[in-house]
Amino acid sequence: MANKNDVFDVIVIGAGPVGITVAARAVRGGLTAAVVEERLAGGECEYYACVPSKALLWPMELAAEVNRMPGLQLRGPIDAAAVLARRDETVSHRDDGHEVNLIEKFPATFVRGYGRLAGPLRAEVMTPEGGTRALRARHAVVVATGSAPAVPDVPGLREARPWTNREATSVQQVPKRLVVIGAGPVACEMAQALHSLGAEETTVLVRGDRLLTRAEPFAGDLVAQSFRESGIDVRFGRSATRVERPVAGGPVTVHTDDGGQVDADELLVGTGRRFSTNDIGLDTVGLRPDGPIRVDASMRATAVADGWLYAVGDVNGRNLLTHMGKYQARVCGDVIAARATGRPEDAPGLRDTADDRGAPQVVFTEPQVCMVGRTESQARADGFNVRTVEYDIGEVAGAIVRGIGYTGRAKLVVDEDRRVLLGATFVASDMADMLHSATIAVNAEVPLDQLWHAVPPFPTVSEIWLRLLEQYGL
Amino acid sequence: MANKNDVFDVIVIGAGPVGITVAARAVRGGLTAAVVEERLAGGECEYYACVPSKALLWPMELAAEVNRMPGLQLRGPIDAAAVLARRDETVSHRDDGHEVNLIEKFPATFVRGYGRLAGPLRAEVMTPEGGTRALRARHAVVVATGSAPAVPDVPGLREARPWTNREATSVQQVPKRLVVIGAGPVACEMAQALHSLGAEETTVLVRGDRLLTRAEPFAGDLVAQSFRESGIDVRFGRSATRVERPVAGGPVTVHTDDGGQVDADELLVGTGRRFSTNDIGLDTVGLRPDGPIRVDASMRATAVADGWLYAVGDVNGRNLLTHMGKYQARVCGDVIAARATGRPEDAPGLRDTADDRGAPQVVFTEPQVCMVGRTESQARADGFNVRTVEYDIGEVAGAIVRGIGYTGRAKLVVDEDRRVLLGATFVASDMADMLHSATIAVNAEVPLDQLWHAVPPFPTVSEIWLRLLEQYGL
Repeated sequence: MANKNDVFDVIVIGAGPVGITVAARAVRGGLTAAVVEERLAGGECEYYACVPSKALLWPMELAAEVNRMPGLQLRGPIDAAAVLARRDETVSHRDDGHEVNLIEKFPATFVRGYGRLAGPLRAEVMTPEGGTRALRARHAVVVATGSAPAVPDVPGLREARPWTNREATSVQQVPKRLVVIGAGPVACEMAQALHSLGAEETTVLVRGDRLLTRAEPFAGDLVAQSFRESGIDVRFGRSATRVERPVAGGPVTVHTDDGGQVDADELLVGTGRRFSTNDIGLDTVGLRPDGPIRVDASMRATAVADGWLYAVGDVNGRNLLTHMGKYQARVCGDVIAARATGRPEDAPGLRDTADDRGAPQVVFTEPQVCMVGRTESQARADGFNVRTVEYDIGEVAGAIVRGIGYTGRAKLVVDEDRRVLLGATFVASDMADMLHSATIAVNAEVPLDQLWHAVPPFPTVSEIWLRLLEQYGL
Repeated sequence: MANKNDVFDVIVIGAGPVGITVAARAVRGGLTAAVVEERLAGGECEYYACVPSKALLWPMELAAEVNRMPGLQLRGPIDAAAVLARRDETVSHRDDGHEVNLIEKFPATFVRGYGRLAGPLRAEVMTPEGGTRALRARHAVVVATGSAPAVPDVPGLREARPWTNREATSVQQVPKRLVVIGAGPVACEMAQALHSLGAEETTVLVRGDRLLTRAEPFAGDLVAQSFRESGIDVRFGRSATRVERPVAGGPVTVHTDDGGQVDADELLVGTGRRFSTNDIGLDTVGLRPDGPIRVDASMRATAVADGWLYAVGDVNGRNLLTHMGKYQARVCGDVIAARATGRPEDAPGLRDTADDRGAPQVVFTEPQVCMVGRTESQARADGFNVRTVEYDIGEVAGAIVRGIGYTGRAKLVVDEDRRVLLGATFVASDMADMLHSATIAVNAEVPLDQLWHAVPPFPTVSEIWLRLLEQYGL
C-alpha cells in the first residue's frame, strides 16, 4: 500500500516536454501531480532531438543565407567545434536540474526512477537505488513515455550499433564519411547538419524514390536538389541488405540491393520510431504493448474501463511531434482537472481538434519544409472536394531582396465545398515562422474570402499568400 | 475631344504599385484601362523606398544574426560597394521597361506623361514631347499619385537640399558623417542601413523622447537600445533650429534647440510625407488640394458627385503603406468592374475592412518592428475594453537555438468583450514573416479560444504565441 505521501491526484509516467506539460496544466487546474522519469527530465526532445538538432542546423541555414547575399562573406567553413560547444549549451550540458526545478515549482513531485503501470490508478517506480516505490492516483494516470528510434531488420545492422537521432545530435567528433539510411525528417536533417559540419562524404540511401514522403512531392524534390548541389550523394531506390562493422566504432560497410556498397566511418539510421509501450505495465491494465495506446479526443485510453488512464505524445500515435504532444498534454491536463473537480467539459480547449485538422511540422533542412494540415493526396484520400494552387516563392519581391537565388515553392490545399484551407506547404529558407499564419488559417477554418483581407506587408516573403490567393481566383 | 483611342473604361493617374494594381484588377474584371505616369512605372516603392531600402537593410540583419551564432564569422565589415550594386539590381537599375511591359500585358494602355484631372471623367496628360493628350473615362478615374517626403520648416533646411528616402535609398557614396532628423520608419531604417554601410558617425535627432512613436512604446525603446549598442548617437528631445550648408554638397551643420550643433557630410530628413494632391487638377472637379482625398470603403471619393472619382494609396490618407495601397487597389479595381458591369456589390472583397481593422507594418530595423492592428493606446482611445499580455521573445526555445542573445518582446492587445485580437506587436530579428499569423488573427477576428488550437511548431520563435496565450490565462 502506498503511504500517504505517495498518493497524488495525477501520476504522469514520463517527464519529456509532454509529461511535464500535463503536470503543469493539472496543477494549474487545482490538482496534485507526480511525474516519474528514469532518464533526463525534459526528454528526448530537449537533449537528443528537436533542440540540439536545431542548434546544429541553424548555422548551416544562416551560412546559406549569407552565401546568397552580396556584401557578406564568411571567413571560412562553419567552425564545427564552436557549433558543438554551443549545442552543448542549448542542451544545458545534459543536466536536467532546471527541468526538475521547474516541475517542483509548479508545484509537482518529481520521482526519479523507471515507472510502469501497476493496475488501475496505480504505478510503481524502480528507483535508482534499486528499490520499488508504489504510487497511487486519485483521478488519473497519464502515460507519456514517448517513442524510441526504430532500427530496421537488416542483417548486421543492430550489431553495427548505428547512430540514431540520439548519437547524431550529441555528436562530439563529426565523421568524415557518413552513410545515412532513411528519408524522413531525422535522416534529412542530420545528413545535412553533419555534412555542413565536416562529413565531407555523406551518402543517403533511400528505399523509395523521394525524400520526406509524407510531405507534398515537391518538398522532397527541392530538398534532394539542395542535397546534391551541396555535394551530398542521395541514392534513390537503394535498400541496405547487409551491414558489416568488424571493429566496434571502426569503419562500416553497407551493402545495397543493387550489389553495390558504401564504406563510411559512421552509419546513421533514420527510419522511423517505435512507440515506447514495452515494459510499462500495460498488461496490468488489460492492454497489449503491440502499438500505440489509442485515445479519444480528451486523451483518455479508449480500451480501459473507468476512464482513469490517459496517454499523450508519441505513445498515442496521433502525431509524433513534440509540439503536438505538448498540445495534447494541455488538453489532457485541463480535462483531468475539469473532470476531477466537476467543472463542465464543454469549455474550449478540452478536446484535441488540431491533430486531425491542422498539425504543423517543420523539417529544418535547407530549404526548410514547413507544412500544416493535409497534403493534397491526404485531402483527396479523406474524400474532400480538393483544389490546389501553387506558386514559386522566389518570384515575390520579399524573396528578391533576400539575396541572389532565394527561392522555393508554396502550395495551398483548399476544400472547395467550404472554401477553407485544408493544408499548406512552404518550402524555402527561414520559413519556419511564416508557417503559423497557415496553422491559424487551417485550424480556425478561416474562409478564403476572409484571408483575402489579411494583407501581407511589402516586401516580405509572406506576400506569397497574396499570389496564391490571386492564383486561386480571388 | 478625346479621339476614339483615348477613351477607356478606367483611367488611373499614377503607375506606382497601387495604380498598376487598380488597372490589373479592372482589366481582370473585363474593363479597359489606361495608366498615366510621368516618372518610373513601379513608383516610389520599387525604386526609391520599400525595395531598395530592404536591399540595403537585409545584409545588416543577416550580419547581426551571424554575429550571434557561434561557428560562423564574417570576413570583415559589410562590403558596401557590393550591397549597393545588388541594390541597383533589385531596382532594375531604375529602368521601368518590365513594369511597362507588365501593364501592356494585362492588357492596359500605358501613357507616359504628367497626368491631371480635367473635369468629370476626364484627364489630361502633358507628354514628354511637350504636347497635351486628352483622355476620357467611361466609368471611373482613379487618383493614385501617392505622396512625397515632407521637409519641415527649419531655416536653411530646404536650401541645404537634404536627403529624403529617395536619395538615401539610391545612395552611391555613403557619407562618413550622417545626421538624421526624424524618428519614424524612414529615419530609423536609413540611419541604421547607412551606418552599417559606412556612416561611422551617425547622429539621429529626435524631437520627442522616443523612436517610432506610432508603435508600442517598447518597440522604439528596443530599437534605440540597438542603435546605441551599434554606436549610433540618438539624441532625444532635440529639434533642429537652423541648418547651414555653405557649399552645395559640402559639409552641413545642424543647430539644435539646446544650443548645440551637429556637423556632418550629409543630412537625411525622415519626418513624414505629404499627400501628392497638388497640381493634379482637383479644382476641375470641385476638390481642394489641402489634404488627402477622402474616400469611402469602396475607395470612391466622398466629396465628388456621380461617384466616378476614386483615390487609392497614400493620396487617400488611410494608411501610407505600399501593401495597404495595393489592397485598396484590389478593392477599387474590383468595385469599379462590378459597378460598370452591373454585378452585385456585396461580394466579398468589394469593401476595405483591413485599413481600419488590421493594417500590418514592418519597420526593417535590427531588431525588426512588426505590428498589426491597434496598439494598446489606440485601442483604448477607440473605446475598446482592452486587456494586454506581453512576453520576452528571447525566452522561447526557438530563440535560444538562433544564437546567443537573440531576444525581443511581443505584445497582444485583446478586446475583452469579444475575446479577439485588436493588435499585436513583435520586436525581434527576422520576424517580418511571423507577423502574418497575427494579421490573419486580427483581420479574421479569430477568437482566442480558437487560436489556442493553432499549435506553433517546436522549436520556433512562433511559440511566443503559446506563451502569450498562456499568459492571458488559456
